Amino acid sequence: MIMDEDFIKNPDVPGPTKEELRCLMICKSNVSDKDIVVDIGCGTGGLTVEFAKKAKYVYAIDINNKAIETTIQNIKKHDVNENVEVLEGDGLDVLDELTNFDLLIIGGSGGKLPLLIKKGYNKLNNNGRIIITAILLETRVEAVSTFKELSVIPDVVDISISKGQISERGTMMFAKNPVAIISAKKEN
Amino acid sequence: MIMDEDFIKNPDVPGPTKEELRCLMICKSNVSDKDIVVDIGCGTGGLTVEFAKKAKYVYAIDINNKAIETTIQNIKKHDVNENVEVLEGDGLDVLDELTNFDLLIIGGSGGKLPLLIKKGYNKLNNNGRIIITAILLETRVEAVSTFKELSVIPDVVDISISKGQISERGTMMFAKNPVAIISAKKEN
Amino acid sequence: MIMDEDFIKNPDVPGPTKEELRCLMICKSNVSDKDIVVDIGCGTGGLTVEFAKKAKYVYAIDINNKAIETTIQNIKKHDVNENVEVLEGDGLDVLDELTNFDLLIIGGSGGKLPLLIKKGYNKLNNNGRIIITAILLETRVEAVSTFKELSVIPDVVDISISKGQISERGTMMFAKNPVAIISAKKEN
Amino acid sequence: MIMDEDFIKNPDVPGPTKEELRCLMICKSNVSDKDIVVDIGCGTGGLTVEFAKKAKYVYAIDINNKAIETTIQNIKKHDVNENVEVLEGDGLDVLDELTNFDLLIIGGSGGKLPLLIKKGYNKLNNNGRIIITAILLETRVEAVSTFKELSVIPDVVDISISKGQISERGTMMFAKNPVAIISAKKEN
Repeated sequence: MIMDEDFIKNPDVPGPTKEELRCLMICKSNVSDKDIVVDIGCGTGGLTVEFAKKAKYVYAIDINNKAIETTIQNIKKHDVNENVEVLEGDGLDVLDELTNFDLLIIGGSGGKLPLLIKKGYNKLNNNGRIIITAILLETRVEAVSTFKELSVIPDVVDISISKGQISERGTMMFAKNPVAIISAKKEN
Repeated sequence: MIMDEDFIKNPDVPGPTKEELRCLMICKSNVSDKDIVVDIGCGTGGLTVEFAKKAKYVYAIDINNKAIETTIQNIKKHDVNENVEVLEGDGLDVLDELTNFDLLIIGGSGGKLPLLIKKGYNKLNNNGRIIITAILLETRVEAVSTFKELSVIPDVVDISISKGQISERGTMMFAKNPVAIISAKKEN
Repeated sequence: MIMDEDFIKNPDVPGPTKEELRCLMICKSNVSDKDIVVDIGCGTGGLTVEFAKKAKYVYAIDINNKAIETTIQNIKKHDVNENVEVLEGDGLDVLDELTNFDLLIIGGSGGKLPLLIKKGYNKLNNNGRIIITAILLETRVEAVSTFKELSVIPDVVDISISKGQISERGTMMFAKNPVAIISAKKEN
Repeated sequence: MIMDEDFIKNPDVPGPTKEELRCLMICKSNVSDKDIVVDIGCGTGGLTVEFAKKAKYVYAIDINNKAIETTIQNIKKHDVNENVEVLEGDGLDVLDELTNFDLLIIGGSGGKLPLLIKKGYNKLNNNGRIIITAILLETRVEAVSTFKELSVIPDVVDISISKGQISERGTMMFAKNPVAIISAKKEN
């Protein structure tokens, strides 16, 4: 995994997704080099870069043009520009233009999560997967209830991490904010 | 419980102990108006004030004179100066001068935790209690192993709290650093 | 605080609310001996008993008659039957029959949380408080959004506790399931 | 990642290491197909299997012969027997017999953690890594203090995970016990 501090940052762009969370998302996704990945709300590009290293191709989408710029900087820095296409726009619109894919990551939804899940699920290839990260309580519940509408039981994991800072006095633990990963697989 | 922001703060003094933690310590202590309390490492005075409201008398001790000043300001502000005595000095030395008491709180130990626990436990009245808060990993373990030496099995609780910040977008959870409470009762 | 194991239990009744959570609810509620308390979904009666010790009067309500029986056993065991009335029925219906009160605790809602909050908030005396415990993700969000409808910003705290089990090998931490407390005050 | 339930289990053997933790250990380790891995306290063989899929070779060690049997069953089931050698014995003794390696995983130490870390660190190739999982408070502190003796500042991460169980009523979160990962890299 790339260290958090090895991504280029922009104060106006959220991210990068923390190392441990990127790690868990890579695992939960079972991503392989045959997979076409769509990353909606790519932000700083942390997940885009990690998935690009393991997938066949990644489409990174964000409505914020500063996020687009930062993601482009990071895919260059981490040398994955050959299999990433960065697309500025609303996730729902961009989904319409894309052909089917294997893996959909939703890190930012601008309040349109249920529609993104439904449209995205529809465009998944057989055995495709959706993975949503949620920092808001409401996002966790919206994701679960949308999957229920699709008759899919998602996997829900809430992760709280604290990191030790070691000094002469001892090891002080600093908490990171909790994040949930909601994921599901399309089975035909 | 007093709100965190209702304590006078000093940038050079740790604390106040967060509301939820003060609350749990009051509960774990079973403090009553018959209890003499000793608060070692009183810092901002958060616990001193809360215990003073429920106990017979509180001795608040700190080696840092800015902590002593801040505690004095807070016992005045919260109107508990009548049953609090504030003592500047090393906890071990002050313990020597005090007669027996019912409740010992150790929030700061300056690396002398095992000695403080042993000397303090020795000076507890029958049914007396010790409560230690630990933010360092090492403090948790030192407390447990010192109690084991005293043939006492302490109660160990680790508490992770996150607080919601509500905006139009939704409820974002912000994590507080984990804290442990190690407590034990003296039974004769 | 009463220890968890000191409540009479019934396998068909949830609860008692864990010691640490009872403790935090007592704190968050600022309950005093002038307060009339309503406890909807009293279950085993853990909160009923604790609040009865500090409040003027408690109405304990549950739709499950085994919960009612268990609560009655616990108020007897803990000697608070003089200021508790136990009422079997649907919370919404019982709220209609009660005159105004100071403190509403909702531990179980049978899917009617928004209505319970609205009706209950309406019946709170000035400076009255509502406190909701949530183990489901959906309950957290429903509570927050109902308060938003009432133009009230609630306090949201999510609590994760782990308890140490001490053996010769060392201190193993066992996690309790996370619980949220959502609370609000009525200010006129 | 392999699902927890896809490992063969033995009631007398701890493990398998939970999916999310295996995932984080794979990430923290930066394991590659050039790495020789030593897994002390292999237990059920969960980590052995995962590392065997990514590393050049894995030595799986346990002093408990039922753990050895279970690990052998799992490396067969998951088809990694070609690059795993399973060794029954005390970790310290087996370390003596092995030539240098790239990655040392310590999941069980039988009270000999400081010695295992020191001997293991000594046998790491340049850029080698040690990763320790700790469920006991004491293990966290022993690992940190042993690394300090070696003038190494380890990375300390404490992980608390809860998993959602979805029913008609909603999403109930069930907590897993917290685990720490302490890791360090050898730099020459």
